This record gives sequence, C-alpha cells and structure tokens, in this order.
Amino acid sequence: MELLKQRILRDGKSLSKDILRVDNFINHQLDPQLLMSIGVEFARRFAYTHVNKILTIEASGIAPAVMTGYCMGVPVIFAKKSLPNTMENPLISQVHSFTKDKDYTIIVNRDYIKKGDKVLCIDDFLAYGSAAEALCDIVEQSGASLVGIGILIEKAFQKGGDKLRERGIRVESLARIEELDEGVIKFCE
Amino acid sequence: MELLKQRILRDGKSLSKDILRVDNFINHQLDPQLLMSIGVEFARRFAYTHVNKILTIEASGIAPAVMTGYCMGVPVIFAKKSLPNTMENPLISQVHSFTKDKDYTIIVNRDYIKKGDKVLCIDDFLAYGSAAEALCDIVEQSGASLVGIGILIEKAFQKGGDKLRERGIRVESLARIEELDEGVIKFCE
Repeated sequence: MELLKQRILRDGKSLSKDILRVDNFINHQLDPQLLMSIGVEFARRFAYTHVNKILTIEASGIAPAVMTGYCMGVPVIFAKKSLPNTMENPLISQVHSFTKDKDYTIIVNRDYIKKGDKVLCIDDFLAYGSAAEALCDIVEQSGASLVGIGILIEKAFQKGGDKLRERGIRVESLARIEELDEGVIKFCE
Repeated sequence: MELLKQRILRDGKSLSKDILRVDNFINHQLDPQLLMSIGVEFARRFAYTHVNKILTIEASGIAPAVMTGYCMGVPVIFAKKSLPNTMENPLISQVHSFTKDKDYTIIVNRDYIKKGDKVLCIDDFLAYGSAAEALCDIVEQSGASLVGIGILIEKAFQKGGDKLRERGIRVESLARIEELDEGVIKFCE
C-alpha cells in the first residue's frame, strides 16, 4: 500500500536492525484518516471472503481493526491482556514479545467467536509471528474458521510471515520490510 | 444520544448498583458502525471549538477516540499504561481504578501534546472521575488547553462528572445513568 509506505519513509524512525518506531502515526499518536484508508484497503483485499468477525489485540491493533470493521460492516473483538473479573471460561493463548522480551496472555470471551464464524485477524506489526500465532490459536480453539491475517507492517526479515504462509494461512501485509538499520528502511520488492 | 441509550438498554447488563457491562459492543467486542455514529455526535457537539488533538487512554478509549478523530480530521493520542523503552521525558499522571481497586500510571509522549494545542479528551466511562482527571492533568502539564471531555457512558450517581463540571470543565456524556441495579438501568432525564 503505497500511502502507508510513503508515510513510513516520512515519519517512521528506524533505530537499529530490529526496531522501527511508528509511534507518531500508528501506535501512540494515531492518524485516523490514514487508518481509514488502511481499513478500506483490507476490506478490498478480503472482499468476497465472507468475513463476519475481526479479531485483534489491545492496544495498537484496535484502531486499524475498528476501521476495517467499519468498512466491512462487521464487529471487532480485541483480545485483552488481563482477565476481567467477570469473564468465565475464556479463550486463552500465550504470546512471546521479542521486543519486550517477555511472555503475556491474550484472552477472548468465548461468546464472541464461535463455530461458523469467519474471522479476519488484524495487527499492526508482524515480526517473529508470536502474536499472530496466538490469534490463530484463539480462532482454532473457538471452532471458527480463519480467513486470513491483515498486517500493517511486516518485518519480513524476521520470518513470522513466512512461517504463517507455510502453514497455508493467507497473510496480507500492507508494507513489507526487507531490511532495517539506523536511518535505513528498505521495503521488499 | 438516543442510539447509544437504546443499545445500552438492549445489550448492556447491569450486574449490581455499580457495574454495567457493555463488553459486547463497547469494550471487548466493538460495533464499528455505532462507534462511527458516536464519532459524528462528538464532532457535532464540539464543532467550532478548534480542537486539534484528541487524547484518550488505552484500550477502551481508542475506538471511540479514533472515530471522533476521523470525523473531526485531527490526530488521536492514546495514553499508555506502561512506559515504552524508547520514550524520554514523558507526561505522566496517576489513575485510581475503583472497579479494579488499584492504581495505575498513564503516560504520554511530550512531543504529541504541546502549548497551543486545543485538546478534547475522550473516554468510554466516567464514574468517580479519576481517569478523566488524569487526562486533564496531562493536558495541563503539557501547556495545551483543554476544550472538554467527551464520555460515552457517565455513571452520574458516582459524581465524577459533577466534580469536573464544578471545575468549569465542559463534559459531554452521550448517556448519563442515574441509577443502576441488577437488571435496572435508569437514565437521567
């Protein structure tokens, strides 16, 4: 998606071989107009797939997911990172964050994703794939079918996307990065 | 806002004198179409106020804030509940959650709210007002001006809204609840 790539080049900051900061338009300060364009793009790419639920993870996934849900006319569920007092018998999976070097749990109310649902998972970043795999795991546990995964920025050199595609999962990334370094952002062809 | 009140009556669950669950359309599963209508309503109520930034708190505030930002054409900043590795010299304030009976910190990058900005704060619930006061505190620390606070559901009997209004702050709540009890939801006139 050219609009997103151009924005990453303009406003993103590549701090090292691993870290791309986009907190001025995606994950701390948000550009709602850009996010709506992202929602339109995911709706276009996943048209005719009969998606009826979108699943994401709090907090950075919520804005692109809700815009995509708006464009597709379907509800959005965001997985929580802590168990609310009032939730019984939830769907639970584990994520390892390489950036923060810690594990966390994601939790979804079993009432909201069920057998027969066709689920699109949305997240801001795809790196080693741990969060995306946990979302797939939640969908599998629920008995619903996974239509695919929509990602804003895939750090392709960290291979999480390849692992998912090898499993036959459709992964649509709006910007795929081949190489990062201090001051360098190179997209895949 | 009649649409929101009707939805609360249809899908909300009042579990006690304190607790209203709306996690099937506002804070776990989201209805993007409803949230866009909420964004339109806040944009209408805060028209001609020259708002140029919206501030909210992760995670439940993000969806209504981003829709409002879309309708008003302004960026949205969501305060984080944990300090990212890479953020220097942030704006910080404290919140006491009565629901969870614990304190937490909210954090905003100082680059994103500055003197001269006109800030609208958005949140899903207003109860005792601790989160809203922390958002006001962040705005004050930044040197920006606070235009007002937009709330989806105000539990008016918990008096947080009154305290803010007594300070001269404009608080717009789309649904104000006078009384809750098991199975009972009564709106203010």
